[in-house]
Amino acid sequence: MKAIWRLTRRKADMISLANGDPHFTLYPIRKLEFEVASVEDGVLDPVSSWRGAGASAPSQSFTTTTHSGTLPLKAAMQYSAGAGLPDTQRVVTDLTNFYHSPPDHVVTLTLGNGDGVSKCFRLLGEPGDHFLTDEFSFSSLTNAPLSHGINWVPVKIDNGGLVPEELERILSNWNEEQQGRRPHVLYTVPCGQNPTGCTLSVERRRKIYALAQRFDFIIIEDDPYYYLQYDADGNEGETFKFMPSFLSIDVDGRVMRVDSLSKVMAPGMRLGWITSSALFHDHLVTLVDSSTHHPHAFGQVFLTEMLSSSGWNISGFDRWVRSLRKEYQRRRDYFLRTFYQEVSRTGLASANAPEAGMFVWMKVHIDKHPRYRSDVQHTNGSKAKTNVEELMEELFERILDGGVVVMPASIFVAPSDLNKFDSDDPIQDRLNFLRLTFAGQEETMQPALARLAQVLKEFFADTK
Amino acid sequence: MKAIWRLTRRKADMISLANGDPHFTLYPIRKLEFEVASVEDGVLDPVSSWRGAGASAPSQSFTTTTHSGTLPLKAAMQYSAGAGLPDTQRVVTDLTNFYHSPPDHVVTLTLGNGDGVSKCFRLLGEPGDHFLTDEFSFSSLTNAPLSHGINWVPVKIDNGGLVPEELERILSNWNEEQQGRRPHVLYTVPCGQNPTGCTLSVERRRKIYALAQRFDFIIIEDDPYYYLQYDADGNEGETFKFMPSFLSIDVDGRVMRVDSLSKVMAPGMRLGWITSSALFHDHLVTLVDSSTHHPHAFGQVFLTEMLSSSGWNISGFDRWVRSLRKEYQRRRDYFLRTFYQEVSRTGLASANAPEAGMFVWMKVHIDKHPRYRSDVQHTNGSKAKTNVEELMEELFERILDGGVVVMPASIFVAPSDLNKFDSDDPIQDRLNFLRLTFAGQEETMQPALARLAQVLKEFFADTK
Repeated sequence: MKAIWRLTRRKADMISLANGDPHFTLYPIRKLEFEVASVEDGVLDPVSSWRGAGASAPSQSFTTTTHSGTLPLKAAMQYSAGAGLPDTQRVVTDLTNFYHSPPDHVVTLTLGNGDGVSKCFRLLGEPGDHFLTDEFSFSSLTNAPLSHGINWVPVKIDNGGLVPEELERILSNWNEEQQGRRPHVLYTVPCGQNPTGCTLSVERRRKIYALAQRFDFIIIEDDPYYYLQYDADGNEGETFKFMPSFLSIDVDGRVMRVDSLSKVMAPGMRLGWITSSALFHDHLVTLVDSSTHHPHAFGQVFLTEMLSSSGWNISGFDRWVRSLRKEYQRRRDYFLRTFYQEVSRTGLASANAPEAGMFVWMKVHIDKHPRYRSDVQHTNGSKAKTNVEELMEELFERILDGGVVVMPASIFVAPSDLNKFDSDDPIQDRLNFLRLTFAGQEETMQPALARLAQVLKEFFADTK
Repeated sequence: MKAIWRLTRRKADMISLANGDPHFTLYPIRKLEFEVASVEDGVLDPVSSWRGAGASAPSQSFTTTTHSGTLPLKAAMQYSAGAGLPDTQRVVTDLTNFYHSPPDHVVTLTLGNGDGVSKCFRLLGEPGDHFLTDEFSFSSLTNAPLSHGINWVPVKIDNGGLVPEELERILSNWNEEQQGRRPHVLYTVPCGQNPTGCTLSVERRRKIYALAQRFDFIIIEDDPYYYLQYDADGNEGETFKFMPSFLSIDVDGRVMRVDSLSKVMAPGMRLGWITSSALFHDHLVTLVDSSTHHPHAFGQVFLTEMLSSSGWNISGFDRWVRSLRKEYQRRRDYFLRTFYQEVSRTGLASANAPEAGMFVWMKVHIDKHPRYRSDVQHTNGSKAKTNVEELMEELFERILDGGVVVMPASIFVAPSDLNKFDSDDPIQDRLNFLRLTFAGQEETMQPALARLAQVLKEFFADTK
């Protein structure tokens, strides 16, 4: 059918009786107006001006009508291409070039991060394939390809995120006869990883990319927290340098970068994009055409106007995200100060300052618990040597009873056939972590952490 | 993770440190305004008032802000449920009840028709399964489940659409030992079927539903043209009765109805819904959660305001679609009058008036062509007895050269292992149809049909 649409250009005065496209005069909508935060030069810190001042905060508006605007409704509301409307692709390409200057890549619009990542999985995997990922990862995404027959190979992480040497060890020792085709895909979140909050250093990124070249695997770089990177002293402000992405160092076209606006605009946007080689782009579009079809017009209109001179422009977007980065850094610092005062002081838990994202990965010093055991023989076939899993389940329940909701490490364990990998050091013995966020309301952080500390003290005293 | 979210309700003063949800004060958008066609009582024929009067056409506006509106941005722009925001589900449920009064069903929002249908396919099919469908169907949808290993079983259609007796014959004769599991899914477009324009009569619908009960199959009712049903004399207007849908007669919960706004609002909306049993709904939500995630906020805000008292309300929507129905009926009638004058008069082609939708299925009287043969022995393994396929390819090329784009029947053949089904009456011998649309610009219909007639005359004279 697409081939036929192309044929419509054969002659200059071709008339089409081919498609069931409603005429734009029959769309019942003719004007769309958005009022957004101002990022004008005069506004020094756009995010704090915006959130502090409520209805009186400086704003700017843009309007799209049937025939006017950067992306008029006449074009936006019609059936369109799976990769997105050309104007929207253009602004998103400009944005990607601004931050990553990829050598030779094409953007494909998505319906947000979950859609983008699951389309990459779908595109790259055949039933029976193995994909690599961080041993703790965001389960709603790693669960996605299971029904398609993908198996996960968890890679160990430390405070600095995925450990390149562990990756190398897995791939070097891979036995295709016993284990099937060697993993050809690594899925990773390089900044403020969910749930551990880790950020890969430039050095680790280069090492991992070199391994990708050596073992010929593709890197799915899922980077929703890219713009929420923090500096050491909190003072770098406008000159802050964002960490180079995998995309920016990709000379082979082996990186598929998934971008999202959920964390820097709003989750309801449900519009993001994948940046990849032209080859993967073509396949992605085919996949879009047989599943979700083209992205929604309202979001594409918003994004196109927003990133054009009618809205923020890319320079304004950059001012917004830099201001937002500082706002989240302030929240992180406030959260950590409170955490140190309330929780670390008990000596029963600790946490590192995350360099990006929204999460603190709290380590519970579970070996101090009076009922901790390291010589357990499980009857259910588990290779775990400790009772960490049981104790952490108990702690989680007690924290809930204490009036705080946290996320236990157990729900982030990458789903895999655990007996196949690292049975000498099973992840069940390393579940003594809780994911906490500093993205929520600041007013509740202190009481929440005080409750958490109280529960820890009672739990480790084995009372209540 | 969902189970944990539910636990947040355990205590009244629970504090959450669980989710990475940006606070609504950090969304850079605070106001969204839409200007839409007026459907006030004073406007007798909303569609013709709207399209005729341009910028001076009567309109109405609605505004949503962070805290005001039927669905305020504070709630709409956050992460939400896969089934859609509760307010949006509510208006869509009201709309479905208004037209179909289903006995016991639940709605799940989709990202438009393609997404809805392909999610149904994905939910209901396992690799190796057979699904039933109209022998000519919309290829971009029937291609979707092929990569998941679904096989299509084409069911013959006549002027009245899918033939119940053919369906019964296929199912009665099904041999599970030779052919695998008997088809448990029928995918069909009951109104203005794409590409044939056929509409199933009430009687056929009841027969097909009875077969579904007897052979225990599920009906995927894909009904984008439901609101574009036409009456015989064009005078019924406001009292026109829409045909009862499969959903409205579904007592068993075996119908999954896919609704779309592309044809009655605009294709760029990319928001629709599936109405199904609660059981299928639960599975659909799981599928949404591991693929596209929740639907986009801008569309949900628009639809919620539009179908509430802030916008059209359901009564206004009904006035719009009834007016739109008349508008398309006028176009259909104009198109057909021109077709009869220009094309039918040649005696080389004919067409029936479609009772719904946007398409005319033009039959080419190919057996009148001097090079038509009905005793062909193909060397490529085809069981076709005629050279219809070759002649129609030639005609299609000539029509393009003549400056008109149409859709050939060949691209709508349901993809299947043709040798398996009806090898005595292969569809290749019945490809003498072209799909024409009357949805496009009226000004070009007459010249297009005149050109088409001219090409037909030359082709059948075997000249040029």
